[in-house]
Amino acid sequence: MRCFCHCKANCPHLGVPPAVRISTHFYKNHHIYPMNIKGKHYRTIWPHPVHEGVVQIIDQRHLPHRFIIEDLARLEDFEAAIRDMHVRGAPLIGSAAAYGMSVAALHFFGANDFEEKIQEAAAQLKTTRPTAVNLAYAVDRVLAAMALGRTIAEQAQIALQTAQAITEESVAHCHAIGQHGLKLIEEIYQRKLQQSPKSAIRNPQSAIVNILTHCNAGWLACIDHGTATAPIYAAHDRGIPVHVWVDETRPRNQGASLTAFELAEHGVPHTVIADNTGGHLMQHNLVDMVIVGTDRTTRTGDVANKIGTYLKALAAADNNVPFYVGVPSSSIDWSLRNGLTDIPIEERDAGEVHFISGLDEDGEVRKVRLTPAGSPAANYAFDVTPARLVTGLITERGVCAASEEGLLALFAEQKNK
Amino acid sequence: MRCFCHCKANCPHLGVPPAVRISTHFYKNHHIYPMNIKGKHYRTIWPHPVHEGVVQIIDQRHLPHRFIIEDLARLEDFEAAIRDMHVRGAPLIGSAAAYGMSVAALHFFGANDFEEKIQEAAAQLKTTRPTAVNLAYAVDRVLAAMALGRTIAEQAQIALQTAQAITEESVAHCHAIGQHGLKLIEEIYQRKLQQSPKSAIRNPQSAIVNILTHCNAGWLACIDHGTATAPIYAAHDRGIPVHVWVDETRPRNQGASLTAFELAEHGVPHTVIADNTGGHLMQHNLVDMVIVGTDRTTRTGDVANKIGTYLKALAAADNNVPFYVGVPSSSIDWSLRNGLTDIPIEERDAGEVHFISGLDEDGEVRKVRLTPAGSPAANYAFDVTPARLVTGLITERGVCAASEEGLLALFAEQKNK
Repeated sequence: MRCFCHCKANCPHLGVPPAVRISTHFYKNHHIYPMNIKGKHYRTIWPHPVHEGVVQIIDQRHLPHRFIIEDLARLEDFEAAIRDMHVRGAPLIGSAAAYGMSVAALHFFGANDFEEKIQEAAAQLKTTRPTAVNLAYAVDRVLAAMALGRTIAEQAQIALQTAQAITEESVAHCHAIGQHGLKLIEEIYQRKLQQSPKSAIRNPQSAIVNILTHCNAGWLACIDHGTATAPIYAAHDRGIPVHVWVDETRPRNQGASLTAFELAEHGVPHTVIADNTGGHLMQHNLVDMVIVGTDRTTRTGDVANKIGTYLKALAAADNNVPFYVGVPSSSIDWSLRNGLTDIPIEERDAGEVHFISGLDEDGEVRKVRLTPAGSPAANYAFDVTPARLVTGLITERGVCAASEEGLLALFAEQKNK
Repeated sequence: MRCFCHCKANCPHLGVPPAVRISTHFYKNHHIYPMNIKGKHYRTIWPHPVHEGVVQIIDQRHLPHRFIIEDLARLEDFEAAIRDMHVRGAPLIGSAAAYGMSVAALHFFGANDFEEKIQEAAAQLKTTRPTAVNLAYAVDRVLAAMALGRTIAEQAQIALQTAQAITEESVAHCHAIGQHGLKLIEEIYQRKLQQSPKSAIRNPQSAIVNILTHCNAGWLACIDHGTATAPIYAAHDRGIPVHVWVDETRPRNQGASLTAFELAEHGVPHTVIADNTGGHLMQHNLVDMVIVGTDRTTRTGDVANKIGTYLKALAAADNNVPFYVGVPSSSIDWSLRNGLTDIPIEERDAGEVHFISGLDEDGEVRKVRLTPAGSPAANYAFDVTPARLVTGLITERGVCAASEEGLLALFAEQKNK
């Protein structure tokens, strides 16, 4: 039996029937690490260091309580990982889908109907999550690149190279967003420092910049740095005192589970709050700026992001708090002009509202039911914040107004599209 | 040993040392009912049918999973019940505090420093929760009434009678709020019915009135009917098709636990949603009106209510959705003009954000941790919705604008106060 992962020796796959061998659950128990990623640098997705055709991810469903690495080896694994949110966040979904295409290319290598199978794979991957535009962007980009390959072997190689390119670009874009956003934080810091009580030496701690964020647009949503968090990490690393209000972000609690986790691991001061709290904090001058991510932004600057973002944008506008969005260009859908009518909003399983998972007193992750048995629930995953409520978009090319003019000033190549 | 509860025969208290006998936990296990309150009418608080000096409540911490009746027999029991939210909701807190005063009067009956002890009891009760004005209102009203008693025996009797009067008034006020609010729902229903597609007979189901509510301002927050829910129950009972969007209301989930429970028990169609969802629903015309309760409303119409209410009010204003507040006059603080600066906002234990309770797969209520161990949390319990965002206040005397003029038109006796 040929080993699917093409490795030569010491391969744990050898001799194991494919259906078992490449299951997403096969290695799970071999990859449970203690939660001390502190000090050790991780990305959220990477090619398996040994086994060709296998990609590794942090299975984010288990955070913050368990740090589990999962192997993805079949197209179905990638579909499940995206659909069931082992990976989530628009940029990471894009990378995962691109790697999924590259694994599919390997998988269907010897098939007579390779071309057809690859198209099917692309279509299947695209349906796993409807809202993030990065998904379609990444899949289409891999497809377009593969079309340039003269042989199937070349196409498979191109698919992998494209996935890696998308991933590296994403890292570079997030880093650039961090640098552009850093300037905004620094301005607020300097202003607060000037306004702080005069003493022989001004106290930086009296000028702490309070930043509210919703959901997780951190490095866990990307490959590294994050989008909304990139400026925060950049400011913190620069020595600017920042404090982050972390919306827990029901129903899936990506804020409490992921943003809090990664901020804690990086040593950034933060406080977890219920999603209901941001308005009150803004009314009492406890928020200096809001930074969120986006799953899809229209060419006119309407921002689809995790459900509840719109409510925070309204509160920010009502209290003159600047509201920024970290937007890698891969999240911009240049074909859309009206976010409210044109961006499909994913409706997820009501079970995510009925049930929640957490750590019980015995240290076990346990799911509990929150609602009465007789009560239905609805689970809209995203909402759209109209451009009028957005102070600015922080892209990898700089900060611009949330408008077509603003975006086109940075992305002139999109003018005639 | 004299039995504290003054009952003569068959008293389970007899012979049990007071410290054990009057513990809030003493009877708990004797009062666990199966959750079939359907069909049987309950109030949220009532004098024990047998034991004088004992008051019974539904211990709401266990809903919707367990229906547990608790006996309150000592002042400390009432304090704990209010502070730890066995009872909650402004009107119910008021009644519980009033009954607490009556039990204190019985308790200190033979004391030399009766007067002093009663004043201490009043002060202690008032500190249990800071935001709901009903608490101070009820305690002060009992004190003022007791001052008219010529003997301590008479004072004790007056305390009980006043607690009962406050409770009965609360029921009457909620009923009146229901009738006034019913007209608002009926207007929306008639308008939707007229706008619905013409057919031989207009279909009432095509004109369902979608009402969003936050937290629990239902009968469980009151004695009966509720404040925000009173118009909903009145409309449902009148045959108007209503559907309620129930905000789960983190961190304590009073919406998912209590509002959903009581709507389900009463047969009112409803859907539980994450608190993040309301804005999206309003953007897509899925909400016809919002009705919430209040813990304290200023004479100028600023509304303190459960944290997150302000965010829904902003969304309602942004989408032209009418935003109403059910306000029994006991919740109006005529001494305050500026809700944002003058209403104290309770900060509760961060544990309510870190942990959540629910039913595990074995049917046991279990607490699980949601946040990483290293992440702090903050827990502001209320926020203030400025009057400018409120369409109208539904009081027991009618509906008025959220303004001093509006309120004084209904409560002229407060003009010179």
